[in-house]
Amino acid sequence: MEVHKVMAPQPKTFLLEFRDRVKEIFFPDDPFRQFKGQPTRMKWLLTTQYVFPILQWGPTYSFKLFKSDIISGLTIASLAIPQGISYAKLANLPPIIGLYSSFVPPLVYAVLGSSRDLAVGPVSIASLILGAMLRQQVSPVTQPVLYLQLAFTATFFAGVVQASLGVLRLGFIIDFLSKATLVGFMAGAAIIVSLQQLKSLLGIEHFTHNMGLVPVIGSVFHRRDEWAWQTILMGVCFLGFLLITRHISMRKPKLFWVSAAAPLASVIISTLLVFAFKAQKHGISVIGHLQEGLNPPSWNMLNFDSTYLGLVAKTGAVTGIISLTEGIAVGRTFAALQNYQVDGNKEMLAIGLMNVAGSCTSCYVTTGAFSRSAVNHNAGAKTAVSNIVMAATVMVTLLLLMPLFFYTPNVVLGAIIITAVIGLMDFPAAIAIWKVDKVDFLVCLSAFLGVIFISVQDGLAIAAGISLLKVLLQITRPNTALLGNLRGTHIYCNLQHYKDASRVPGFLILSIQAPIYFLNSTYIRERISRWVEEEEEEAHDNKTTTPHYVVLDMSAVTAIDTSGISVLTELRSSLSKRGLQLVLANPLGEVMGKLQRADQIQSFGTDGLYLTVGEAVASLSSSLKEQP
Amino acid sequence: MEVHKVMAPQPKTFLLEFRDRVKEIFFPDDPFRQFKGQPTRMKWLLTTQYVFPILQWGPTYSFKLFKSDIISGLTIASLAIPQGISYAKLANLPPIIGLYSSFVPPLVYAVLGSSRDLAVGPVSIASLILGAMLRQQVSPVTQPVLYLQLAFTATFFAGVVQASLGVLRLGFIIDFLSKATLVGFMAGAAIIVSLQQLKSLLGIEHFTHNMGLVPVIGSVFHRRDEWAWQTILMGVCFLGFLLITRHISMRKPKLFWVSAAAPLASVIISTLLVFAFKAQKHGISVIGHLQEGLNPPSWNMLNFDSTYLGLVAKTGAVTGIISLTEGIAVGRTFAALQNYQVDGNKEMLAIGLMNVAGSCTSCYVTTGAFSRSAVNHNAGAKTAVSNIVMAATVMVTLLLLMPLFFYTPNVVLGAIIITAVIGLMDFPAAIAIWKVDKVDFLVCLSAFLGVIFISVQDGLAIAAGISLLKVLLQITRPNTALLGNLRGTHIYCNLQHYKDASRVPGFLILSIQAPIYFLNSTYIRERISRWVEEEEEEAHDNKTTTPHYVVLDMSAVTAIDTSGISVLTELRSSLSKRGLQLVLANPLGEVMGKLQRADQIQSFGTDGLYLTVGEAVASLSSSLKEQP
Repeated sequence: MEVHKVMAPQPKTFLLEFRDRVKEIFFPDDPFRQFKGQPTRMKWLLTTQYVFPILQWGPTYSFKLFKSDIISGLTIASLAIPQGISYAKLANLPPIIGLYSSFVPPLVYAVLGSSRDLAVGPVSIASLILGAMLRQQVSPVTQPVLYLQLAFTATFFAGVVQASLGVLRLGFIIDFLSKATLVGFMAGAAIIVSLQQLKSLLGIEHFTHNMGLVPVIGSVFHRRDEWAWQTILMGVCFLGFLLITRHISMRKPKLFWVSAAAPLASVIISTLLVFAFKAQKHGISVIGHLQEGLNPPSWNMLNFDSTYLGLVAKTGAVTGIISLTEGIAVGRTFAALQNYQVDGNKEMLAIGLMNVAGSCTSCYVTTGAFSRSAVNHNAGAKTAVSNIVMAATVMVTLLLLMPLFFYTPNVVLGAIIITAVIGLMDFPAAIAIWKVDKVDFLVCLSAFLGVIFISVQDGLAIAAGISLLKVLLQITRPNTALLGNLRGTHIYCNLQHYKDASRVPGFLILSIQAPIYFLNSTYIRERISRWVEEEEEEAHDNKTTTPHYVVLDMSAVTAIDTSGISVLTELRSSLSKRGLQLVLANPLGEVMGKLQRADQIQSFGTDGLYLTVGEAVASLSSSLKEQP
Repeated sequence: MEVHKVMAPQPKTFLLEFRDRVKEIFFPDDPFRQFKGQPTRMKWLLTTQYVFPILQWGPTYSFKLFKSDIISGLTIASLAIPQGISYAKLANLPPIIGLYSSFVPPLVYAVLGSSRDLAVGPVSIASLILGAMLRQQVSPVTQPVLYLQLAFTATFFAGVVQASLGVLRLGFIIDFLSKATLVGFMAGAAIIVSLQQLKSLLGIEHFTHNMGLVPVIGSVFHRRDEWAWQTILMGVCFLGFLLITRHISMRKPKLFWVSAAAPLASVIISTLLVFAFKAQKHGISVIGHLQEGLNPPSWNMLNFDSTYLGLVAKTGAVTGIISLTEGIAVGRTFAALQNYQVDGNKEMLAIGLMNVAGSCTSCYVTTGAFSRSAVNHNAGAKTAVSNIVMAATVMVTLLLLMPLFFYTPNVVLGAIIITAVIGLMDFPAAIAIWKVDKVDFLVCLSAFLGVIFISVQDGLAIAAGISLLKVLLQITRPNTALLGNLRGTHIYCNLQHYKDASRVPGFLILSIQAPIYFLNSTYIRERISRWVEEEEEEAHDNKTTTPHYVVLDMSAVTAIDTSGISVLTELRSSLSKRGLQLVLANPLGEVMGKLQRADQIQSFGTDGLYLTVGEAVASLSSSLKEQP
């Protein structure tokens, strides 16, 4: 049988290799591919279009698209108005800020963003985190002006962090939050948010500031004397109404507009009820007066004072990264559905600039929200003009309709929030994760429990830590397998899984399924020694041929480092002292390159390196036969 | 061509799989293998022998072995005495503690240890770290009694940590310090230790307490007025003598005893000189009075007071793990040379118990030292009785010879330390690392610079962090390759490396060389999409066959998680929308298991999964020919 020589990669200079590595890390999607071979004027045009995607789809906009966008824009506006007011309360901010945040940011996104379906505005989780982290040091009740300043400054930092990740092309950092982590985290955050609404649902005045499950439940039951039956009654009715409409929309996707219109309908109906019955005198708390007019500028409110700089920087970073994760995930999901591409890093830049602009125009952290974007998509949005329409509707509301919200009860806002976050709890996904990968389920569970019992940031950190630990553990204790030959072929596969595979006498064929790093080099050496000892014992007991060759199938050894190279050489020498020869089969390019640089190829020699296991066995079998 | 079915592993129950995983993580060397099938009485005997290895080699001890062990024991005693005194000074402890630590610990190790060549006693790096960490909070000059108490308590903690790692079989934790990290770390620590000796070499009284390079050099030059010429003269002479003897022993390995005897000879000669010339009156500082007698018990000195508990716990943990790393590395090195096995976890238990016993008998942190063990080995040690002989010699010294050290100058101890640690700087290893793996060299360099400029613990932490980051980065941006067929065979290999390989028309054959985790699933999906686009463009430009099949060679995809499974299914659907079919070839057992549990095997179908790339191409080519 013909034996092929195993080739090593062409040695590249250090600089060239470094440049290629950097290019693959930071520019994996080669975004400037389209620029090649174009005249300079075209390159300028392409660059401007790249930075302002509106210039790409703007010129080809048609009235037909506008018709679809108007409908979807109005639909998401009906969601944005109640949700904006509710989420601002979640962040301990004046409700008007939530409406401001549904005006400027969508306009900025329409100019800079790449996704057609993303609907931008405040989101529950970022509002929760912002409120929780700022409240640790500053009370929104006793120091409302300072709190507002810090909220805007944190939004500014969030935008800066997001834009930096985009510009420095460090977007892969959000990939470090696995799907399992996010499923558990979202579910936990949803529970936390819902628990917070118990304050407005039950009408309690004195509520714990702690977000954890235990303190909240404790507060609910200790303040039983503050429960107001009118509030509870109204809350239960509207919560029921909202949940039923949500259920209807889930059962019949064509009726998506039912659950989209329900929040606004609830607000209108409850406002009318309170107005009619003068219920605010009967103990139902209402929003009260909201100022009219568009967003006032707020760059003068940005507070970089060193006392709070650490707080706002940390808050900005955490809310920035988490809202980025949601926004990018939403963008990618809909892009995959519609079969277009979204440049993750460019989106991060758009979302970042949106938040920076927002921080200077009285907005707080915003991003693409999943529920709102789903409604946007289902309502038939064709381009980002949908966001412009929504912003225009919010503008009309801000200029003209503010007095209508005077009598809107807070309890209804709480019910709207609960209905919105219930959708974040994805039990089918959690069950699917349990079925497929138990360690991933542990990650999911630890994120969930961490968020509920410890804190939002800690829950996320613990889950991310376990995910990375799992990756390292799989390398530290890799799978190894004994291979056998499928009769009549040159295919070698795992003896445990393939009953038709059989051992080759005189050969011990092993497969190592991980890179050989410092993490596992000692383990691998000891494991192989153990395989050899067990083989020799078995051969001795059963009087079969003792192994002469140990063939290592290196197809799955994805990389190697200096510790790995030493282990291979040590193994070769210790095995030869026992009369066995170590042979490597099918080493990958990078491994061959390192073996070459370590001058170890000669030590393995012409009969120590083979292109496939089949060639190794065939070639060495003939020399085995020649021996007595 | 015959096509084989791809088999998935037998589904195991969760508990069974968990048990197997745990067994492989914690008992990879299956240490109880020898117990199988033995009668109960035998099992008890084997257990006792396992815990006390002395019962294994003790009964077969002979006078011939004793002859070799006596010689090696006396040789290492001649090293142990000056080194013990010097290293204790390095830890800011009274010199007598160093001798105590060369008496009890070797005796304990002889009973519990598994290595034949390991010579136990104080070591430079552990002494350095202990002294540096304790001195951050407690001054050995103004609070000597408290300092001593804390040193013993830290030793106790170190022993507990080491023994726990052994008992809980967490020994693989020390594998997290790669060879590159240790090379850089040892070299940096050697420089730090040598710089500290400048105090005694130059006779400076007021020296900085900071260990970093810059403060020490600053201190040396600012205190030029304190330089004492007599001290410098003596120091330079003896340092030169020691370095020359070291060089001789390195050139002619048979003369190893020259460098082994040199420290003791220097101590004797310099003591005589100082005594003869009454040099202590001329500015040369001497050790002074050392109390006689064996180790006093010190368990009453263990200080668990909460004020310092954090300090001693941290110091104990750090010194424990670092000295464990050295001791285990030394044990493994000599075991490999001599072709016997050393159970890492058992050794950790032995070293841990040795330190716990030591902390109660006035000893500080000890472990197996590399230089001393090398001398032990070269001097012909056959068993651990060598340690017993050394301990006996130290005992004689403690009982009778203490007054002889009165006039021993501190400068000679400094010279001995410098000569000892110079051997820790392994430049050939660093150069070999630079040649083979540049990232490993970065790790080595960062450990070195971190230790020198920041601190010992931080340097180690930074290097360990970069090592782990490298592992994660290789997964986040894995190598991918385009495969082609070696004409006339069924072998497929990287087109870039094998000029004889050629493309198969209509097929895009890709290889992914990493597990598909959350870390890289997005990247992999985008990379494959890019491959497909480039293929289609090229086929369009060159009028060749557009690809119909995308074959993913999964031989090197060592594992997959839920994110990875979603990416494969998303790819399959998005590619089929473009008229391409995604086909998987040679998935490994674990990947097949997860695909099965995720019910995704049906979606790939009978023509979507193949055992090898060759079978996939052959089978699909026939269907390709049937198409118009």
